[in-house]
Amino acid sequence: MNIIFIPIIVSIFSLIFAYFLIKEVKKAPSGSGKMIEISLAIREGAMAFLKREYKTVGLVAVFLFVILWLFLGFKIGLGFLIGAVFSALSGFIGMIISTQANSKVAEAAKKGLKPAFNLAFKGGSVTGFLVAGLGLLAVSGFYLLTSDLKALIALGFGCSLISVFARLGGGIYTKAADVGADLVGKIEKGIPEDDPRNPAVIADQVGDNVGDCAGMAADLFETYVVTIVAAMVLGVLLFPNLAQAVILPLILASLVILASIITTFFVKLKGQDVVSALFKCLIIALVLSAVGFFPIVFQAAKDFSLPMINLYGPALMGLLITGLIFLITNFFTSTKHSPVRNIAIASQSGHATNIITGLSVGMKSTIMPVILISIGILISFWLGGMYGLAIAAVAMVSLTALIITLDSYGPITDNASGISEMAGLPEENRKITDTLDAVGNTTKATTKGFAICSAGLAALVLFSAYTQELESLGAKTQFFLQDPKVLVGLFIGGAVAYYFAALSLTAVGKTAAKVVEEVRRQFKEIKGLMTGEAKPEYGKCVDIVTKAALKEMIVPALLPVLSPILVGFILGPEALGGVLIGSIIVGIFIAISMTSGGAAWDNAKKYIEEGNFGGKDSFAHQAAVTGDTVGDPYKDTAGPAINPMIKVLNIVALLIVGFLI
Amino acid sequence: MNIIFIPIIVSIFSLIFAYFLIKEVKKAPSGSGKMIEISLAIREGAMAFLKREYKTVGLVAVFLFVILWLFLGFKIGLGFLIGAVFSALSGFIGMIISTQANSKVAEAAKKGLKPAFNLAFKGGSVTGFLVAGLGLLAVSGFYLLTSDLKALIALGFGCSLISVFARLGGGIYTKAADVGADLVGKIEKGIPEDDPRNPAVIADQVGDNVGDCAGMAADLFETYVVTIVAAMVLGVLLFPNLAQAVILPLILASLVILASIITTFFVKLKGQDVVSALFKCLIIALVLSAVGFFPIVFQAAKDFSLPMINLYGPALMGLLITGLIFLITNFFTSTKHSPVRNIAIASQSGHATNIITGLSVGMKSTIMPVILISIGILISFWLGGMYGLAIAAVAMVSLTALIITLDSYGPITDNASGISEMAGLPEENRKITDTLDAVGNTTKATTKGFAICSAGLAALVLFSAYTQELESLGAKTQFFLQDPKVLVGLFIGGAVAYYFAALSLTAVGKTAAKVVEEVRRQFKEIKGLMTGEAKPEYGKCVDIVTKAALKEMIVPALLPVLSPILVGFILGPEALGGVLIGSIIVGIFIAISMTSGGAAWDNAKKYIEEGNFGGKDSFAHQAAVTGDTVGDPYKDTAGPAINPMIKVLNIVALLIVGFLI
Repeated sequence: MNIIFIPIIVSIFSLIFAYFLIKEVKKAPSGSGKMIEISLAIREGAMAFLKREYKTVGLVAVFLFVILWLFLGFKIGLGFLIGAVFSALSGFIGMIISTQANSKVAEAAKKGLKPAFNLAFKGGSVTGFLVAGLGLLAVSGFYLLTSDLKALIALGFGCSLISVFARLGGGIYTKAADVGADLVGKIEKGIPEDDPRNPAVIADQVGDNVGDCAGMAADLFETYVVTIVAAMVLGVLLFPNLAQAVILPLILASLVILASIITTFFVKLKGQDVVSALFKCLIIALVLSAVGFFPIVFQAAKDFSLPMINLYGPALMGLLITGLIFLITNFFTSTKHSPVRNIAIASQSGHATNIITGLSVGMKSTIMPVILISIGILISFWLGGMYGLAIAAVAMVSLTALIITLDSYGPITDNASGISEMAGLPEENRKITDTLDAVGNTTKATTKGFAICSAGLAALVLFSAYTQELESLGAKTQFFLQDPKVLVGLFIGGAVAYYFAALSLTAVGKTAAKVVEEVRRQFKEIKGLMTGEAKPEYGKCVDIVTKAALKEMIVPALLPVLSPILVGFILGPEALGGVLIGSIIVGIFIAISMTSGGAAWDNAKKYIEEGNFGGKDSFAHQAAVTGDTVGDPYKDTAGPAINPMIKVLNIVALLIVGFLI
Repeated sequence: MNIIFIPIIVSIFSLIFAYFLIKEVKKAPSGSGKMIEISLAIREGAMAFLKREYKTVGLVAVFLFVILWLFLGFKIGLGFLIGAVFSALSGFIGMIISTQANSKVAEAAKKGLKPAFNLAFKGGSVTGFLVAGLGLLAVSGFYLLTSDLKALIALGFGCSLISVFARLGGGIYTKAADVGADLVGKIEKGIPEDDPRNPAVIADQVGDNVGDCAGMAADLFETYVVTIVAAMVLGVLLFPNLAQAVILPLILASLVILASIITTFFVKLKGQDVVSALFKCLIIALVLSAVGFFPIVFQAAKDFSLPMINLYGPALMGLLITGLIFLITNFFTSTKHSPVRNIAIASQSGHATNIITGLSVGMKSTIMPVILISIGILISFWLGGMYGLAIAAVAMVSLTALIITLDSYGPITDNASGISEMAGLPEENRKITDTLDAVGNTTKATTKGFAICSAGLAALVLFSAYTQELESLGAKTQFFLQDPKVLVGLFIGGAVAYYFAALSLTAVGKTAAKVVEEVRRQFKEIKGLMTGEAKPEYGKCVDIVTKAALKEMIVPALLPVLSPILVGFILGPEALGGVLIGSIIVGIFIAISMTSGGAAWDNAKKYIEEGNFGGKDSFAHQAAVTGDTVGDPYKDTAGPAINPMIKVLNIVALLIVGFLI
């Protein structure tokens, strides 16, 4: 039997597993009339946004499909289209599940923390195994049918592009709605979060889904697919006569999916310690994978005629990085450690010191992950060369199913919290969903840290494929640091990352301003809104933020597509190589500082709300709300979007390399 | 006659010119009793800080002197010591002048804008020509005496190290005092800026001098010296048999000092337009320099047997970059253009949107300078190779005298403003000094932009010297982007820049917290302070902030000294090369975004205070004050300190390179 069927079978198995989970989630009761009503409103808003987003992105995708077809052939175009469709699909499904699970979790919380946790975890698992299954199926199926690696790169491009749009569009949406709702509701009107009197409250809930579910799922789908594709491409370029070099990444990914499925049966919440339960789950998956890798790599090492450690070492390194990133991010973003507490302490002196401390925590949080990646690069490369690095990256992203599970239970519980509040469920209910939600901030930050670190490794593999491709085309291109073209490339790569992040921040600011205007208008014009006698026009806010987010995402999303083309054709392949590395180096720092910093701000606010430094509505709390608001576009728009952005840049370079010499 | 005497004579001429300016400034009246009293208190505080700072730094310097002597020989140690002493001297003198000129400018403002401007400009010129004269004298004199380029590099190291300390110590001091004074005074107590009832008001004024004068002067002294030294060293490495290659940088610098002296006679303020007067002054200097370069380069091209354009082109490029950086920074930081106004507009929605917009303006402000530097690198290199790049860098920094003049009139007028307020001078007086002060924010940002861009070029030249030195030592070290060691080096270099900036921000936060505590204590314990019946204990605040700033500056300042040593000896010269470039690439983005972003925040506040969006004490103004406060450590501590930090890193690498192979 051809071993390419192994990943295909495993991916189908993963999808079947997800299907059974869906059935279980659907069985759970959705609660009372009001809860269902709110949940429905959220789903409708989310669907409306996603439909319009996909329409906009669809136009771009069709345009690019035609361009790719004309310039690079039909298969390339097709690959791109399949990547785009699968990526969109994974975002879509992720969102459907979470918008159904939210009210069910709110309902389950009536029975206690454990049932609520279990249901939310199941909801998250659905997305996790769907995304991983679809990803592995797309890559292995497409490879089986075409055996065309260039087309496979195009497939990666399709995923990455959709992912940039999803992260940006969803990110702008969610944070503009959130910031808008908070600025008027919490700060000007003094009403609590998720208060049904706030006209932007539904838009805010919708945002959680289109940003944290759809955006995140598309992002991790992309990370997963592109990393595996990059490793396969590099396998062919480095070992042109060794079919196993192409297949090994797929087999490793398959093994980890199976290990992750087994792991889900071991998840048990003991007491209140949600983080420990999740971390134990991760450790089980890591150990199972490490053991499972053994026979696979044992066989592969024989085929490669290499000592086993040269492949096994990098694979373990990849697993280890994932585990450690979890710990590091947890340290910087959990309410239990000094970084978050320092922000809370600084909030006592006011808005500005909260911001200064938060910015510095974000910057500091980059150091350990970057050193970790550096050690990973050195050891993997030392053991297995560039292919070793690729294997480390694959081992890392192979945990995607589980990481998504840990992450996407966050927005489900966040929504459940919101629904409890709006439906007027008793205080204990809200407390339970809040407990789950607080951990959500950290797991979300962890996922982003995982995504950006794996993105760094994957992008390096792509860069390596770019240089190998140049070599195989007979170009004598060298990338010396002393070469002014390379240096200028590094600067431009950094500039692309900075400009991209700046545009994303501006986009949130602009969109949020429109929401603020509308919410203020409704509070002014609708009589009896504050007293609860009249209902706000939720739909108007949803509509405004949908339009604005879609408009604002276009320019930043095209930046990583156009800049490598411009640099490549004007300054040549050396400068383009510099751009790729420059965007990776600078991008990783921006992304980690923004995602961890943002989560730390958020949790500093939560820490104060727990009653520290004066608790809710104290002076410190006001300052913490400001920090949280600044952190919103940091951690949910600009920061995570850097990840697919870097990869779009690198993939476009890989696609155009043939034209540069 | 040996042409090395030309720079020595010119530098002495520059010092004599400064001497005559000092005499003129001293002649101007210092105002009434209260003004002198305040001015004296400021000077005393500043002197006390500087003495203690130099004592601390002196210990480090003596320690390093011994180390360098033992490991690299006496001349190297001596070079380091001379660099350190001259750098400290330039900071010291700069501060003495400005603490004398401040009350005189406040007094001159009684006669109108023009006399105040002229006096402030003269005060600034003193520092400018002293710094440039001392710098040129140190380099050319030391070279004449020793002809030892390694010792000259050590001289640069001395300058850079003192400069890091000065920028950090001064920067932490000034911003901690400023933030502390504002947080309690403006926000909690609602009293105006520079109100004599605020216990931290003298510390704040002292800070302007130790940070903006002493820190800035040491920084630009370092930029000036190191760039010239780097060009000289590269000249020897690239053209070992051509004495002119070493001397040319000194001759170009000499010419521009003369051109700058002539320029000062053309400065005329027409109406209220201070920016135009300053910009005209810069243009005159640029044109005079461009013309003056012609005969020098004409002769040099003959000696080099090169077409003239190969040297003249890069020199013009350097001048052009300086001019354009001025325009770009002005666009991003002046109240007349959209970036600052957008921050002001965003302030209407609150603290958080002010911050988000400011952060994004800062990030955007990096793009144009980086593209400008890139074009400069490409053209200079294309025309004159690596030496061309060195010439461009020298041409750029040769304008230092004038740039310092434009800059250091800022803190003088800022102090004059403060003294007017505290001495209770009439409203018109304060208006005049405020007009001058507002432009000061932009010129300060411009100087920092100039410093960081020239630092980028200078650091690239140093990196090039590092690679050349490796080559001349027979090492076959290559710096390929694909080399994992180089990649890891790039990551670590970026991490050093991030960690350095984060530590600087934290230092300000910590120190400011202590000031806040003390000011709150005094308002609480000293009866009649708010009503003006009792006097605050200014000295206590000065003392607290002095101690804390000195303590906090040590760790970040040692980071760029130790990290290249660690990386070099553990990972080798390839990784160290990566660290150098990584710190330059990442550092430039951090530094520009922080300095321009900070200035934009500051001026957005000023713009609102001019009566826009509700003017002073409006909701928008409160948000703008938050932004200004966040911007303070950005633009005056972390951002500008990156400049000498990058160079310390590169110079240390250059000093240890012999031990790495």
